[in-house]
Amino acid sequence: MRGTILYGAHDVRCEEVPEPQIVRPTDAIIRLSASCICGSDLWPFRGLNEITSPLAMGHEYCGIVEEVGNAVTTVKPGQFVVGSFCLSDNTCPHYRFGFQSSCQQREFMTGAQAPLARVSLADGTLVATPEIPSDDLIPHLLAASDVLGTGWYAADAARVQPGSTVAVVGDGAVGLMGVLAAKQIGAARIIAMSRHKARQELALEFGATDIVSERGDDGVARIKTLTNGIGADAVLECVGMKESMMQAIHSARPGAMIGYVGVPHGVELDGQELFFSQIGMLGGPAPVRRFLPHLIDLVLQRKIVPGKVFDLSLPLADVAEGYRAMDERRAIKTLLRV
Amino acid sequence: MRGTILYGAHDVRCEEVPEPQIVRPTDAIIRLSASCICGSDLWPFRGLNEITSPLAMGHEYCGIVEEVGNAVTTVKPGQFVVGSFCLSDNTCPHYRFGFQSSCQQREFMTGAQAPLARVSLADGTLVATPEIPSDDLIPHLLAASDVLGTGWYAADAARVQPGSTVAVVGDGAVGLMGVLAAKQIGAARIIAMSRHKARQELALEFGATDIVSERGDDGVARIKTLTNGIGADAVLECVGMKESMMQAIHSARPGAMIGYVGVPHGVELDGQELFFSQIGMLGGPAPVRRFLPHLIDLVLQRKIVPGKVFDLSLPLADVAEGYRAMDERRAIKTLLRV
Repeated sequence: MRGTILYGAHDVRCEEVPEPQIVRPTDAIIRLSASCICGSDLWPFRGLNEITSPLAMGHEYCGIVEEVGNAVTTVKPGQFVVGSFCLSDNTCPHYRFGFQSSCQQREFMTGAQAPLARVSLADGTLVATPEIPSDDLIPHLLAASDVLGTGWYAADAARVQPGSTVAVVGDGAVGLMGVLAAKQIGAARIIAMSRHKARQELALEFGATDIVSERGDDGVARIKTLTNGIGADAVLECVGMKESMMQAIHSARPGAMIGYVGVPHGVELDGQELFFSQIGMLGGPAPVRRFLPHLIDLVLQRKIVPGKVFDLSLPLADVAEGYRAMDERRAIKTLLRV
Repeated sequence: MRGTILYGAHDVRCEEVPEPQIVRPTDAIIRLSASCICGSDLWPFRGLNEITSPLAMGHEYCGIVEEVGNAVTTVKPGQFVVGSFCLSDNTCPHYRFGFQSSCQQREFMTGAQAPLARVSLADGTLVATPEIPSDDLIPHLLAASDVLGTGWYAADAARVQPGSTVAVVGDGAVGLMGVLAAKQIGAARIIAMSRHKARQELALEFGATDIVSERGDDGVARIKTLTNGIGADAVLECVGMKESMMQAIHSARPGAMIGYVGVPHGVELDGQELFFSQIGMLGGPAPVRRFLPHLIDLVLQRKIVPGKVFDLSLPLADVAEGYRAMDERRAIKTLLRV
């Protein structure tokens, strides 16, 4: 089959790779209905993470179960499933606490920018839908696998409540999903920080009530003005850079939580500054599995349309163009037809 | 009157100072029933905070209202009151959100190691008891002003729940109050980290179920062993040093919160490490005012005896010895008879 391999900075290729096989009895093989490119794939693509050997790319997936290992009991061939980008058992304490992304057996999904993929820990990781969903729902279900689940976790970690005033830093796909999540949870006011017209429009469609196009200190000042000098009750940091984290911290009111889901790159935090700003923080790889049943349900009931975040759809053969389009911010998120 | 002035590192004196006067119509003058020395007073005493001019020391207080300004409506002369070390109005949004310690008009109390003290923002800051409490309750009510309220906030910020497994880093007075708070909130297991026999015993008396005397990596390993490799649900960081913060982070399970109340000195946090450890954090100056009515009630009902943390009682004239005893860890906390 054809799969996606990253060889080095800006060198990603669609090429012949071996078909995945059941390796352990807890594995499943999935025939993907679609795949996509994640904002986090851009870190190694840009050379910001070291690449020591070729990487099989892709960690977002949904599709039909082809085959399962002997120990798998909760899904079976022919079922449609969505899984998290973090693979997790369904038994360890972290799983039970709802932090499946820190599961004692955690693995990160790889190789899903391809028509077939192996999912280990299938029982813990996969959620089957009651029936095979119609084709138009596929992008929305695919989004649940990571980008929607991650935006949702940002809102959950930031303790968004009904009535909250929420600020979202980052207008990438995850930030836009954070806007959608905050809206679903019942936030009264959702301030999206974005300077890109198409992303602003999508943010408004997903539920943003205000757009702030300024950045840095000016952006913080705008948020303070919009909140009568108080700051936001909850801030979603969906970038992972020093500037965005500082913007999040300075936009929050004392006692607020920041949910941060962009993998921090070059972010150092001064303990005393955090202390006196009295801002709470919780981040990490999103425990998407905790939210999956609810998110799938919202999609199947057609209450949310997270797949609108895919503004470019390409055949797998053109995966390199998909990366370039996102890298150059010509596309928010690329869906891959596998 | 005699008051306490810090002139420089290790140079604290009890000397003649002017009696406090009403300066603003929102002020009250309190005749203190007792005062005390705070662990945070040791930062400037040890020369770790710069001292540019003589400091009127003391921010923990309870006593009888002597006089109030024209604008004060909620307390009156003759009443017994307890106030927070953070002075706050009762009107601003942060106050209403329960973060009085980040009040828009916030001031920090000073000059309370003396028989009389001025409390500004009296309406927002002071809580009166229904009647004059008996003398034996004074140390416990005094504790509510800061050390108990701060330990309580550590437990609140760490989201201690009934049934939680809690680790407390730091066996100073605040850490011991954190143990007491966790017990009151209903923690099932409270692991106190201490290598000092007297402090261990007090921790056990306040509700600790386990004592860990190891520090650093060994201490973390012990906590992991005690929690079946999981880590604590909630960690109270009551020191403020790099080592103690790292101990707290490494002792917590993914998804846990750290409530940190020791003012961080030299603490830098790496964003990526925090992200992948998936530990939440909330700290800051404790919003003691939020907890005061409940804490006063617990003391008046004789359900808690936080004043046991005072293991040294001195007349105000000997305040310098009180500082030295705490600095040298001969005393946990010094009560001053004013």
